[in-house]
Amino acid sequence: MAEQPFSKLVGARLTVLAQGKAEIVVPIRTELLQQHGFVHGGVVSYAADNALTFAGGTFYGDGLTAEYKLSYLRPAQGEMLIARAETLYAGNRQAVCRCDVYVASNGSEKLCATALGTVANVNPSRKEA
Amino acid sequence: MAEQPFSKLVGARLTVLAQGKAEIVVPIRTELLQQHGFVHGGVVSYAADNALTFAGGTFYGDGLTAEYKLSYLRPAQGEMLIARAETLYAGNRQAVCRCDVYVASNGSEKLCATALGTVANVNPSRKEA
Amino acid sequence: MAEQPFSKLVGARLTVLAQGKAEIVVPIRTELLQQHGFVHGGVVSYAADNALTFAGGTFYGDGLTAEYKLSYLRPAQGEMLIARAETLYAGNRQAVCRCDVYVASNGSEKLCATALGTVANVNPSRKEA
Amino acid sequence: MAEQPFSKLVGARLTVLAQGKAEIVVPIRTELLQQHGFVHGGVVSYAADNALTFAGGTFYGDGLTAEYKLSYLRPAQGEMLIARAETLYAGNRQAVCRCDVYVASNGSEKLCATALGTVANVNPSRKEA
Repeated sequence: MAEQPFSKLVGARLTVLAQGKAEIVVPIRTELLQQHGFVHGGVVSYAADNALTFAGGTFYGDGLTAEYKLSYLRPAQGEMLIARAETLYAGNRQAVCRCDVYVASNGSEKLCATALGTVANVNPSRKEA
Repeated sequence: MAEQPFSKLVGARLTVLAQGKAEIVVPIRTELLQQHGFVHGGVVSYAADNALTFAGGTFYGDGLTAEYKLSYLRPAQGEMLIARAETLYAGNRQAVCRCDVYVASNGSEKLCATALGTVANVNPSRKEA
Repeated sequence: MAEQPFSKLVGARLTVLAQGKAEIVVPIRTELLQQHGFVHGGVVSYAADNALTFAGGTFYGDGLTAEYKLSYLRPAQGEMLIARAETLYAGNRQAVCRCDVYVASNGSEKLCATALGTVANVNPSRKEA
Repeated sequence: MAEQPFSKLVGARLTVLAQGKAEIVVPIRTELLQQHGFVHGGVVSYAADNALTFAGGTFYGDGLTAEYKLSYLRPAQGEMLIARAETLYAGNRQAVCRCDVYVASNGSEKLCATALGTVANVNPSRKEA
């Protein structure tokens, strides 16, 4: 992720990476907000999409989000966005992963969005796990 | 959109806003890329999501993307990302909108992603059109 | 569900209905298959969609699936399809629910599809829970 | 489709099949309704899912819907359901297709649902078009 210029612009960090799982944390700052003072949906989407890619990608060496659906549940306001993705199924060609996005504020977390998506195996001749 | 700090960070411009329609343009620069030199999916998602919001929002004064699904079709490489959204149905409580995202390069455009989503009427007592 | 002619045609039964949750069971028979001997995707979709509606509908008296996304994970072959839905968030106007669809065969269950969707409150002036 | 027992149970017919395109028609009868007299969502989903499969499958000899998202727009009431799918992109491994579902009543058609989905190439070593 350090090699993704956009991830640096957003200020995201990959905090967990394990078999089928990934967690991405985005410290919330003014530049990431929309006009009502909440985290912009684009940042929530970015975090979910990227966490899906990393979670599914653990099976393939390298993954690519092919598609996803995201539902916004609550406006995100707080100190930190935390996207946690897990894999429901990993086949040879693609993995189906789920991601819950939380906003942390004053030491507690609230679910603010959830996503479901497909991560393609970039190199289908190779499956690591 | 000028009031969205994140849209300023991304460098997006709202280039069309008409009944049920919206177009958002994002000039592509290094900070918006991922590690392989393509536009980061988070930027494509941001543009699609925001164009959906504006297109559906034309019916309500103010709209909010409640959910959307996005399919990536091709890696985006070029000078400009163009997200064009239109409304398929607008009811009292919500609109269903579609968005095609193109990448412009050397004077031609290629479809690189497509999205389908729901835009909620923020103030359900009011419908403008 | 007994009042839904299509649910009778499919042969589905609502086996669990609790606050935010629902389970639908479909005994698998020849008429529900596709050409390769697996349960037709339309039956899997039907079960997921309907379980979402019932799960979200527990908050509103009556619900309506507004939209959903479904990912097929494995071909479904066995004795019984079981769709289990739960609610992630229930607001005044709509609930976001998730549904996992299992196929039961020889006493064990396998996840064969998963869905994420929105259930609209048919009567927004009323929220029961 | 004649080989799909569930398609026979529903009473669906494949009325158009051309490069990247498919149309499925379902005559509406009592068994296909829900409790309010509208076509059951499961039937709408079935028609959209199947039309996506056929449209994308034209590129591969045989296709399989991997995932899709469907938005219901209006209750479907009338004589006939018509699902029309087209392909937005067809790669070696999968196609992304869109489907609009109309209900025909008294000689006019209304859009009642729309879907966006992915059709997998069942045999990735073969691409026909």
